[in-house]
Amino acid sequence: MQLGMIGLGRMGADLVRRLMRHGHRCVVHDVQPAAIDVLQNAGAVGAASIDEMMSLLEGPRILWLMVPAGAVEAALADLWSRLAPGDIVIDGGNSYCRDDMKRSVELGSKGIHFVDVGISGGTSGLARGYCLMIGGEEDVVVYLTPLFTALACDAHDAREDAGKHATHDIGLATDSSAATAQSGYLYCGLHGAGHFVKMIHNGIEYGMMAAYAEGLNILRCANVGTQKQEVGAEVTPLRHPEYYQYTFDLADIAEVWRHGSVIDSWLLGKVAEMLRTDPTLAQFAGRVSDSGEGRWSVEAAIDEGVPAPVLSAALYARFASRGQSVFADKLLSAMRYAFGGHLDIATPRDA
Amino acid sequence: MQLGMIGLGRMGADLVRRLMRHGHRCVVHDVQPAAIDVLQNAGAVGAASIDEMMSLLEGPRILWLMVPAGAVEAALADLWSRLAPGDIVIDGGNSYCRDDMKRSVELGSKGIHFVDVGISGGTSGLARGYCLMIGGEEDVVVYLTPLFTALACDAHDAREDAGKHATHDIGLATDSSAATAQSGYLYCGLHGAGHFVKMIHNGIEYGMMAAYAEGLNILRCANVGTQKQEVGAEVTPLRHPEYYQYTFDLADIAEVWRHGSVIDSWLLGKVAEMLRTDPTLAQFAGRVSDSGEGRWSVEAAIDEGVPAPVLSAALYARFASRGQSVFADKLLSAMRYAFGGHLDIATPRDA
Amino acid sequence: MQLGMIGLGRMGADLVRRLMRHGHRCVVHDVQPAAIDVLQNAGAVGAASIDEMMSLLEGPRILWLMVPAGAVEAALADLWSRLAPGDIVIDGGNSYCRDDMKRSVELGSKGIHFVDVGISGGTSGLARGYCLMIGGEEDVVVYLTPLFTALACDAHDAREDAGKHATHDIGLATDSSAATAQSGYLYCGLHGAGHFVKMIHNGIEYGMMAAYAEGLNILRCANVGTQKQEVGAEVTPLRHPEYYQYTFDLADIAEVWRHGSVIDSWLLGKVAEMLRTDPTLAQFAGRVSDSGEGRWSVEAAIDEGVPAPVLSAALYARFASRGQSVFADKLLSAMRYAFGGHLDIATPRDA
Amino acid sequence: MQLGMIGLGRMGADLVRRLMRHGHRCVVHDVQPAAIDVLQNAGAVGAASIDEMMSLLEGPRILWLMVPAGAVEAALADLWSRLAPGDIVIDGGNSYCRDDMKRSVELGSKGIHFVDVGISGGTSGLARGYCLMIGGEEDVVVYLTPLFTALACDAHDAREDAGKHATHDIGLATDSSAATAQSGYLYCGLHGAGHFVKMIHNGIEYGMMAAYAEGLNILRCANVGTQKQEVGAEVTPLRHPEYYQYTFDLADIAEVWRHGSVIDSWLLGKVAEMLRTDPTLAQFAGRVSDSGEGRWSVEAAIDEGVPAPVLSAALYARFASRGQSVFADKLLSAMRYAFGGHLDIATPRDA
Repeated sequence: MQLGMIGLGRMGADLVRRLMRHGHRCVVHDVQPAAIDVLQNAGAVGAASIDEMMSLLEGPRILWLMVPAGAVEAALADLWSRLAPGDIVIDGGNSYCRDDMKRSVELGSKGIHFVDVGISGGTSGLARGYCLMIGGEEDVVVYLTPLFTALACDAHDAREDAGKHATHDIGLATDSSAATAQSGYLYCGLHGAGHFVKMIHNGIEYGMMAAYAEGLNILRCANVGTQKQEVGAEVTPLRHPEYYQYTFDLADIAEVWRHGSVIDSWLLGKVAEMLRTDPTLAQFAGRVSDSGEGRWSVEAAIDEGVPAPVLSAALYARFASRGQSVFADKLLSAMRYAFGGHLDIATPRDA
Repeated sequence: MQLGMIGLGRMGADLVRRLMRHGHRCVVHDVQPAAIDVLQNAGAVGAASIDEMMSLLEGPRILWLMVPAGAVEAALADLWSRLAPGDIVIDGGNSYCRDDMKRSVELGSKGIHFVDVGISGGTSGLARGYCLMIGGEEDVVVYLTPLFTALACDAHDAREDAGKHATHDIGLATDSSAATAQSGYLYCGLHGAGHFVKMIHNGIEYGMMAAYAEGLNILRCANVGTQKQEVGAEVTPLRHPEYYQYTFDLADIAEVWRHGSVIDSWLLGKVAEMLRTDPTLAQFAGRVSDSGEGRWSVEAAIDEGVPAPVLSAALYARFASRGQSVFADKLLSAMRYAFGGHLDIATPRDA
Repeated sequence: MQLGMIGLGRMGADLVRRLMRHGHRCVVHDVQPAAIDVLQNAGAVGAASIDEMMSLLEGPRILWLMVPAGAVEAALADLWSRLAPGDIVIDGGNSYCRDDMKRSVELGSKGIHFVDVGISGGTSGLARGYCLMIGGEEDVVVYLTPLFTALACDAHDAREDAGKHATHDIGLATDSSAATAQSGYLYCGLHGAGHFVKMIHNGIEYGMMAAYAEGLNILRCANVGTQKQEVGAEVTPLRHPEYYQYTFDLADIAEVWRHGSVIDSWLLGKVAEMLRTDPTLAQFAGRVSDSGEGRWSVEAAIDEGVPAPVLSAALYARFASRGQSVFADKLLSAMRYAFGGHLDIATPRDA
Repeated sequence: MQLGMIGLGRMGADLVRRLMRHGHRCVVHDVQPAAIDVLQNAGAVGAASIDEMMSLLEGPRILWLMVPAGAVEAALADLWSRLAPGDIVIDGGNSYCRDDMKRSVELGSKGIHFVDVGISGGTSGLARGYCLMIGGEEDVVVYLTPLFTALACDAHDAREDAGKHATHDIGLATDSSAATAQSGYLYCGLHGAGHFVKMIHNGIEYGMMAAYAEGLNILRCANVGTQKQEVGAEVTPLRHPEYYQYTFDLADIAEVWRHGSVIDSWLLGKVAEMLRTDPTLAQFAGRVSDSGEGRWSVEAAIDEGVPAPVLSAALYARFASRGQSVFADKLLSAMRYAFGGHLDIATPRDA
């Protein structure tokens, strides 16, 4: 098939490369001309403007947006007058599913199809293939199948993976959605469904990341009994220093867990790799960003009245890592001072 | 009655003062001679040594320890050879109930009685009276009643308080324990029971403090929609800045809540006072101490298999305020870098 | 002053009574004629319809809505054609501040003023006075002052309260907002500000309630060491049953904490009262409702990027109490079965 | 090598089978004679008693305990008089590391070596190999290497796994501990180190399981907008039912995430398998057991002063699933009744 890719950042460029490997024709555009050049050298057709891109594509045209969530609205406004009935717009970024719903109605009023695709895989996806969560009109999604099979974590990998992980043979999927799921892409439902599932995917990702981070932090501090303790009435002394005399090699531990354990995961491979390379993680400041899906996952839980304590705790740890709890902490110290005359330690925070 | 007070810090000195106001004779000792002088000037009998204290008290002697939890063991070792059967040792500090059990057995083997008293009230207790949670042999506790009634938040206050808060008349207590509870002291059970109840008291205190701190932090940031937002794909933009245009006066809000609201409390009075005096709490660094009871409360919950998410969250906020999550945060950034090439903001934490 | 009260449920009726005690003329309406009759007998002017109410009030008219959040929209639609420029509509319920903003614009387009009032105090408010958090145009709020002073937790109580709780004299407020805060009502800011502050008030309320509930639950289970333990490899045995031999009287403990402790609060009075009356709380099923503010508080925290682990944990406990975590729990058991062959206990949940 | 295996439950029997496949001679004993017969038929040497087992093993003897944590003490007492200096006792169960420390000292006083091995892999381990976390004297652990390599997730799997997951070539390990980690077993440190690392492994496992369970529960309830809502002032209505109209196929979603996503894991394979087999998980009651390590992980975090909100939340969800929050929930309802006259829904909990 042929398609126009708008947005050639890390993800957009990799998608184009993988699509071209599978024989698809890609017309590419970015606000940075240099990004166009790079892909043109790799075999893509460069388009210096949206107008040029539209003219280089045959109808019905497939336009794939791969821009930050905050830039989608402007990109759609740009496209609006240039689109014709039957054209298909795909939003492959991390948009909020509520925006998908609104946009599908607006585009639909002009006969234009809208498809939302949540993509996971990161920088490994080019080689490994991606996991695709797709929303929109089912027949339109089916029509786009060749693109999704090109991008998805391919069938061979999937089989190998199933073989390694399954305790018994799952067998061939008996229905088509299950079959595509085993091939790394899934039609999830109407407009927004793809991004809804991706949102929860990321919510879970935050929770898993935090589980590893907390556990390894506890292991790292398992030598606390060997250290000189703070004195004074304000911090309780460690009752049993003899239990905390271990100095663990976190990189080795992360590595051994990758072989046969219940907590083995793709993410754990990344943890092991990073700890091997930089055991103290000195290159990181510990101010963790969040890109929206974790927040929206928690808001969905609240709207539904469903508890999500782990996903929330993982999110809050990121907020706190950016200093957002400092006023609350000061207020705790202020209360302690007011009722008990306690003066909390005033040295600066560790970094 | 007469008693020997060992430990004349903030709390010990105030207890002596309040006991003397109610006519009790206090022999006092501290490792700091100056602390003894101060109370001697206020009417107490100073004892330069434990030996002198023992000689100044008539048997059966009442020894009240008011020292940090970490110093109780040494204080008891000092007393051990000097105590006689029938003597009563009271631990009024924040000891762990498990230590009370052990100590009561050791002292009991020699015919010495042990009483654990959890005390709440802080620096306000001298004027207002204290809340006393008491464990030990019931007859020994009953014998000490005059001391407890002297220290407790007095009956007049109690009645007034009950009148103001009750929605209907609770009436006179029909049993004696309820009656003493209304007078600010309670026999809670055998050895350790007083400190167990005090431990949970402090666990709840941490939770309440955190509830106020979190809520006021949200109010403080309710102007976030007026601020220039961080840009980039890594932090989600605020979708509705128009909803966050409020600049609240936190001191006024804390104050108004003290008058007729469901969340009025003694602690809220302290919050209002601190916010009035220092609206930005600039004098506090936001590194919050914890003195043990919050930890032991959570451990008790875990031993019992009872969920305590609020008490735990309050405790962890204190740990994190002291920089104890930084390695975990760095690991989150490291994972984000490894799988997505994301580089988290590297500026130093706010203070 | 005179005003029309629409909605004569528990809160609406009590507000009318307290307003009349302070000499205000109240025209009252409810969809239930019986509710009108009751207040008419108490001195109010009954209005069988909105039209009748409008005719009984002199302009500019003050209309006070005291209906469920879900019914405000319909009530405003009813009023819309009957309102004249200069009229004032007050929403005293638990509406979402975002709705206040929208409604103030709509009403404002016709010259009608909108005021949002968050009210705390519950069924005790009639006698004790209420805590009022107010948003809208400042001059309109000032104009309504006589109503707010009538309803608020009155000055005498306020002074007495301040005297009892303050550790040192706070002194007279130096600015007018602080002065009204000490009288139980506060102008918080533009439209929605009152309900925003009330929202956070309730978020804190959830957190405080959960802190007490968790702590008392731990105390209740402090006898777990006396009970026969479940056997088998799937549940860890209690390592130290000797530490959990206490049988605590929760009512007495709640009561003693009310006298001189750091965790004394108005709410604790309610806890003590309920535990005294019904120690096992057998009349309650333990399915806890939530009326929105707790959810919105957490969503505000997330929008602002501020951690709120305690407020969230308190909210989730309510969701879980209504069975909303059961599928997640089943999935945990399913995973345990899949990887370890573990069969979790299948007996029904305790009640 | 040869060894005696005591305890032939699910795990013990599978360990024996895997050891025999690699040519090790296994003498086996269990309190259930039938369990001995089964393995004898599979090639093991049965021992009807501990005495018989001891006589069938050449010195220095290797005794591997594979019994519930609660039964280790009795098993060691049984062995005590029969052990000779130089013998090695391995505890492969889920014992608490603190017990390992104590036991290693006791056994060491008699010249007997103690080794603690935390084992992960569950019922899949027989085919896939196990992940082994080992503590004790290093030379003793090195001596036992042939047993560990037989049991561990073997080198071939390890290489394949590394190849699939790594984004770039990690290369051969440069030190020996890293090398064994890549082969699925790791010497972690002195006595208790193996079980300490296994404890944290399980703590993380709880967190990961909860992350999946919460996320999938949110997806499951994404159709809440299609359902008739509860009415009344006590539960807030869903503001935007239009956003919650999705009916997701959870089994397909779990499956697609296994192919190329960031949250792919071995555990997710189990989730997909269970949801495929039994989409409503009707066979599970949702009362989730916990076997100790999750609790001890949290206690270690608290002792170290390190925040662990995710691990704690995961643990508490299990406690609550067993009805352990019901009293706290009732108290919340009681407070709501006391201050606001609210009567919470009294219908039984969902199942």
